[in-house]
Amino acid sequence: MSSTFGHTFRITTFGESHGAAVGVVVDGCPPRLPLSLADIQTDLDRRRPGQSRLVTQRNEADTAELLSGVFEGRTTGTPIALVVHNADQNPGAYDHLRDVYRPSHADYTFDAKYGFRDHRGGGRSSARETIGRVAGGAVARRLLTEVAGIEVLGWVSSVHTIDAEVHAATVTRADVEATPTRCPDPRAAEAMVHAIEAARADGDSLGGVVTCVARNVPSGLGEPVFDKLDAQLAGAMLSLPAAKGFEIGSGFAGSRLTGRQHNDPFVPAADRPGGVATSSNFAGGVQGGISNGEAVLFRVAFKPTATISSPQTTVTRAAEPTTLAAKGRHDPCVLPRAVPLVEAMTCLVLADLWLRQRSVDVLPRRPDDR
Amino acid sequence: MSSTFGHTFRITTFGESHGAAVGVVVDGCPPRLPLSLADIQTDLDRRRPGQSRLVTQRNEADTAELLSGVFEGRTTGTPIALVVHNADQNPGAYDHLRDVYRPSHADYTFDAKYGFRDHRGGGRSSARETIGRVAGGAVARRLLTEVAGIEVLGWVSSVHTIDAEVHAATVTRADVEATPTRCPDPRAAEAMVHAIEAARADGDSLGGVVTCVARNVPSGLGEPVFDKLDAQLAGAMLSLPAAKGFEIGSGFAGSRLTGRQHNDPFVPAADRPGGVATSSNFAGGVQGGISNGEAVLFRVAFKPTATISSPQTTVTRAAEPTTLAAKGRHDPCVLPRAVPLVEAMTCLVLADLWLRQRSVDVLPRRPDDR
Amino acid sequence: MSSTFGHTFRITTFGESHGAAVGVVVDGCPPRLPLSLADIQTDLDRRRPGQSRLVTQRNEADTAELLSGVFEGRTTGTPIALVVHNADQNPGAYDHLRDVYRPSHADYTFDAKYGFRDHRGGGRSSARETIGRVAGGAVARRLLTEVAGIEVLGWVSSVHTIDAEVHAATVTRADVEATPTRCPDPRAAEAMVHAIEAARADGDSLGGVVTCVARNVPSGLGEPVFDKLDAQLAGAMLSLPAAKGFEIGSGFAGSRLTGRQHNDPFVPAADRPGGVATSSNFAGGVQGGISNGEAVLFRVAFKPTATISSPQTTVTRAAEPTTLAAKGRHDPCVLPRAVPLVEAMTCLVLADLWLRQRSVDVLPRRPDDR
Amino acid sequence: MSSTFGHTFRITTFGESHGAAVGVVVDGCPPRLPLSLADIQTDLDRRRPGQSRLVTQRNEADTAELLSGVFEGRTTGTPIALVVHNADQNPGAYDHLRDVYRPSHADYTFDAKYGFRDHRGGGRSSARETIGRVAGGAVARRLLTEVAGIEVLGWVSSVHTIDAEVHAATVTRADVEATPTRCPDPRAAEAMVHAIEAARADGDSLGGVVTCVARNVPSGLGEPVFDKLDAQLAGAMLSLPAAKGFEIGSGFAGSRLTGRQHNDPFVPAADRPGGVATSSNFAGGVQGGISNGEAVLFRVAFKPTATISSPQTTVTRAAEPTTLAAKGRHDPCVLPRAVPLVEAMTCLVLADLWLRQRSVDVLPRRPDDR
Repeated sequence: MSSTFGHTFRITTFGESHGAAVGVVVDGCPPRLPLSLADIQTDLDRRRPGQSRLVTQRNEADTAELLSGVFEGRTTGTPIALVVHNADQNPGAYDHLRDVYRPSHADYTFDAKYGFRDHRGGGRSSARETIGRVAGGAVARRLLTEVAGIEVLGWVSSVHTIDAEVHAATVTRADVEATPTRCPDPRAAEAMVHAIEAARADGDSLGGVVTCVARNVPSGLGEPVFDKLDAQLAGAMLSLPAAKGFEIGSGFAGSRLTGRQHNDPFVPAADRPGGVATSSNFAGGVQGGISNGEAVLFRVAFKPTATISSPQTTVTRAAEPTTLAAKGRHDPCVLPRAVPLVEAMTCLVLADLWLRQRSVDVLPRRPDDR
Repeated sequence: MSSTFGHTFRITTFGESHGAAVGVVVDGCPPRLPLSLADIQTDLDRRRPGQSRLVTQRNEADTAELLSGVFEGRTTGTPIALVVHNADQNPGAYDHLRDVYRPSHADYTFDAKYGFRDHRGGGRSSARETIGRVAGGAVARRLLTEVAGIEVLGWVSSVHTIDAEVHAATVTRADVEATPTRCPDPRAAEAMVHAIEAARADGDSLGGVVTCVARNVPSGLGEPVFDKLDAQLAGAMLSLPAAKGFEIGSGFAGSRLTGRQHNDPFVPAADRPGGVATSSNFAGGVQGGISNGEAVLFRVAFKPTATISSPQTTVTRAAEPTTLAAKGRHDPCVLPRAVPLVEAMTCLVLADLWLRQRSVDVLPRRPDDR
Repeated sequence: MSSTFGHTFRITTFGESHGAAVGVVVDGCPPRLPLSLADIQTDLDRRRPGQSRLVTQRNEADTAELLSGVFEGRTTGTPIALVVHNADQNPGAYDHLRDVYRPSHADYTFDAKYGFRDHRGGGRSSARETIGRVAGGAVARRLLTEVAGIEVLGWVSSVHTIDAEVHAATVTRADVEATPTRCPDPRAAEAMVHAIEAARADGDSLGGVVTCVARNVPSGLGEPVFDKLDAQLAGAMLSLPAAKGFEIGSGFAGSRLTGRQHNDPFVPAADRPGGVATSSNFAGGVQGGISNGEAVLFRVAFKPTATISSPQTTVTRAAEPTTLAAKGRHDPCVLPRAVPLVEAMTCLVLADLWLRQRSVDVLPRRPDDR
Repeated sequence: MSSTFGHTFRITTFGESHGAAVGVVVDGCPPRLPLSLADIQTDLDRRRPGQSRLVTQRNEADTAELLSGVFEGRTTGTPIALVVHNADQNPGAYDHLRDVYRPSHADYTFDAKYGFRDHRGGGRSSARETIGRVAGGAVARRLLTEVAGIEVLGWVSSVHTIDAEVHAATVTRADVEATPTRCPDPRAAEAMVHAIEAARADGDSLGGVVTCVARNVPSGLGEPVFDKLDAQLAGAMLSLPAAKGFEIGSGFAGSRLTGRQHNDPFVPAADRPGGVATSSNFAGGVQGGISNGEAVLFRVAFKPTATISSPQTTVTRAAEPTTLAAKGRHDPCVLPRAVPLVEAMTCLVLADLWLRQRSVDVLPRRPDDR
């Protein structure tokens, strides 16, 4: 297990889908940051089940409790522990899975790794684990807002074959939250609603892509050569359940361009701290693993939900063939709920790198340095 | 800076393009592993400049010296230090770059971050930094071969718009090394040679994609929830110079499928240690962040080389507009040399996770556990 | 803040003296370990206040709740979260400390570091923070017992100027727990009781020394050069509240011997796995930072409790002179309660190094290797 | 192996006594720090063999080479690699040790751990390994001087039963370096010279104690609860070869005082940044694991050198009894050469904690905070 993420701003998450609780310990948050439970609950509410008819109907309010690290409305510099008790536990509902592996879930691999079968709704591999990430990410977001004015905004840019048209430079949180799809293109959003409902009715499920932008990121964030900003983002995103791909800036499409097409010319920019901007942004805001002051822009691919109510071929723990069809509640498409997860991990990466840059900016820059 | 990679099998790299040397310290390699300089030199030779007319003509033999950690042909369990002295240093050749930022290089961001301009060929952001990774990866590869029979094999699957047809299950190292492109599809390889030479002649450059497979990976590797196998691979790949995207298994294309299409059915497989296989592999060998015994299969997108000999718009360190055209030697397409880099990082990730799994497999499995 | 301890077997603690709760997340515990709350409560009960008239009378049952990581009586390999709610919170009792620094407490230094005054009974610097360590240590102890038969036993070997005579090779847990002093020498224990009661009556406090032995430690534990067994123990012990010194084996007294006196001769020992023992143990069971199969034996010095009820000279937050006398409950001598803390940290160090040794023991030993 | 030390300012050391070279990679040193080889060589010269008749006569100039990380006289923010080639290798001189364990060395434990016998002068367990630490420590010292004016000074305070009288507040580097003993009390120094020479003549060896002070340490350094300043120092010191004990401030003697005697009263101090000082310093400059602005003062016990030329009882690798007497050169007393090691580790700890404090001091302190 490796349940700790980050170097200086660090979270440690815990909890299983049908255990007593899930939660997070945030360590390394600077002291004196104004922080309230409301800051955290806002993001948890965007992640929680039952928020719309598009997502799983598991009935959880996902109310966070704050156990430590905040005093008189501000952080103290000590670890912040946040816990969400599992209300709608129903482990008995999973008894039929005790001895069978659900296809494209982590049932078999967890068993292969740990020699242990926690069949209750995926146990630790359940998306419920991400509650701790979202709670920790909300603390990171508060820090980014307070110290750097960095804004992190994600949205659903495709579901199945429906592609949204979104202007990354101007899209707002309000645009994203306007529909339960979290797709800010109203026409695509409507098509997505129909597609998701059709998939559910058909016992099927859909995948899609989340796009995320971080705005107002100062140049200089990222720690070459292994903790580059893009490397940290890629690792963070692929640690999310159901994520299958990551690309930044031009991404895979950029590999089909030439250097002349792809290079981002530098231009003077008096309004930027460094006085420099690029006139295009194929880089996605990162050069040599370090932010360059442009918008950090990337995309994350999510596979279709593994749980479907159609019958599927699989095997038992004894490796004997069997057939399985999911019962009960599940998300026919994880995309709407994936948006706050992508944002949370982005906030965690940026908060950590922002704090780490503090130990680089130690000695004075000489007049001729810049 | 963060020049250390890995948790249990760890490398720390050092060195700049035009400093005295580049190298690596490998810490955590188990003792008693047979290891010779030849094991390492083989991979370095696949990475080195001047190996073919397709790559940069910088004249470096890149001969490794072994400073510690090996005695009488076997590792001792102590740190293995490997150094490659820079032979073809010519820092003077970069004097014209002292006060100008090359577009789409890390010149500006390193300056913004460190307040320091090491203009000599990119300094630490040069691809020369990857020598340490390849040397460390060669040690990891030796370990994987010796203890697990794991094979890691990469190849060029596209350059610009030329896509190769390759059968991932059967392609061999010999197929890959048959041409200087490292593309095992002869027809595509020939087209790639022409395209790369045309780009060079035109003062332009090309990008492309490396595909990599790891075969015979036992099920159980990967440390949820943050050090999942796919998360580690994604982070490792995006830490490579010029990498812009990562996808595993079905990747971005998989986000356009439905769950019924995408789920990998489990089937009995008497020849597998766990007795279980999947009849398709959209997962790319990883479920819930843990290897499932299938081939681990992923793709990495590389942008076109930033250095081109055409004139480009940029700015000076004083943020004044200027024009720049690269002189001298550089790679018109990094893809052929990217293959050993992708393999090296893959070997490092797998060796680390393989060793980490040792601390999970501690207590006996009960008869009814599997 | 750095609230995570360990490399492979890791704990992250949280919580303040008068916040909602204190607790721990244990990450890296192998799966399939039998574990119950009773295993943990036993050690918590030895640490808790109010257990005897010698310690603080704060009224806390310190009952642990298990939030995750255990299913059907065994660990699952996922993080184990344990929480103890603070029952006897009385933050108002500390209002008079809001603007004054208690001498030889961490009041001033926490304020200097964090720019924040959590005056409620020391906040994070309270000994209450160690509940998480003890709970995590109890899990580690269970692992050590189960996989290695290692026994960790500490006792009070001195209080003030009263020195106990204890035979480290034969003393038992029952001997230690026979009196509330946790000193297994009955005569010294009686004198300690009198001394502690006299100190309390006099508004004063006493320090002392805890000795600890780890028995049946296999040879080979410890990770040179920085995570040597003795270095890990020293760091762990000095992280305990009120600890001022650590010595292993001959310690400071050994620095006054000669090599001829101090060297431990090797002798054949057919009953040992390595076939080798030493006929003396000035080393304290560690050579070159690695266990040698002998008993690991060390001592930890604790200063007298900083809280005393006599009036003391100090300053306010505004750096103005004032006088302060402690009110209410506190330990006149921390030694009896320090024993489970020393044991917990020892168990954590040993469990971590035991698991780490698993990644060293990978390749077969050759016939002539041993 | 764990050859990396530090969190933000990190060193990774490598090399064996009779391999090709020893060295260090320093990662995390801020850019723009003036640094020259002379800065490093000064400390290496204080550590090197053959510097006086009191130490081993192995003939090594220990000249460092700088491979990376410094450009035009200043650090670049990239890893600094420093290598010292082993000149006076004579592995043949150790052939008689191939199958025998030297008492109180790490011969047996390295073999037990690694299943590998590097008999050449201790291999990695040789004190020669500390060259990397001293070189890395010299970089840390340069940083501390430049950014904080922190001075780290150690000296020999006892050899065998000879105790020096030294005034910790006023002793200078010149006092320490006045004699080859590095004991600044001339009378004790003279007695130490005689004692060491007598021990050598007698085929015996001596231990002793190094005391170290860090002056001008700002309040606020140290990361509770596990990376407290005193915990980090204790771990660092016990990682040094031959170290058997650590105590800070009052240490073991303090455990025999009462709280009234031991508490350090706070007093106003207009000349201190925090406006607060203590009128005594039993704490040794650390309260709650955080520096309080007073001198950080601690002691480290070293055992007598294990290598003696008198015959000793031991066993072979086959666990058969034998007799061994050391031949050739060795230190009859490590204390004079231990001083730069203690200083180096202290500098590394302080530089790391100083940089880490940067990520705590992020948000503004409110007027009423202090």
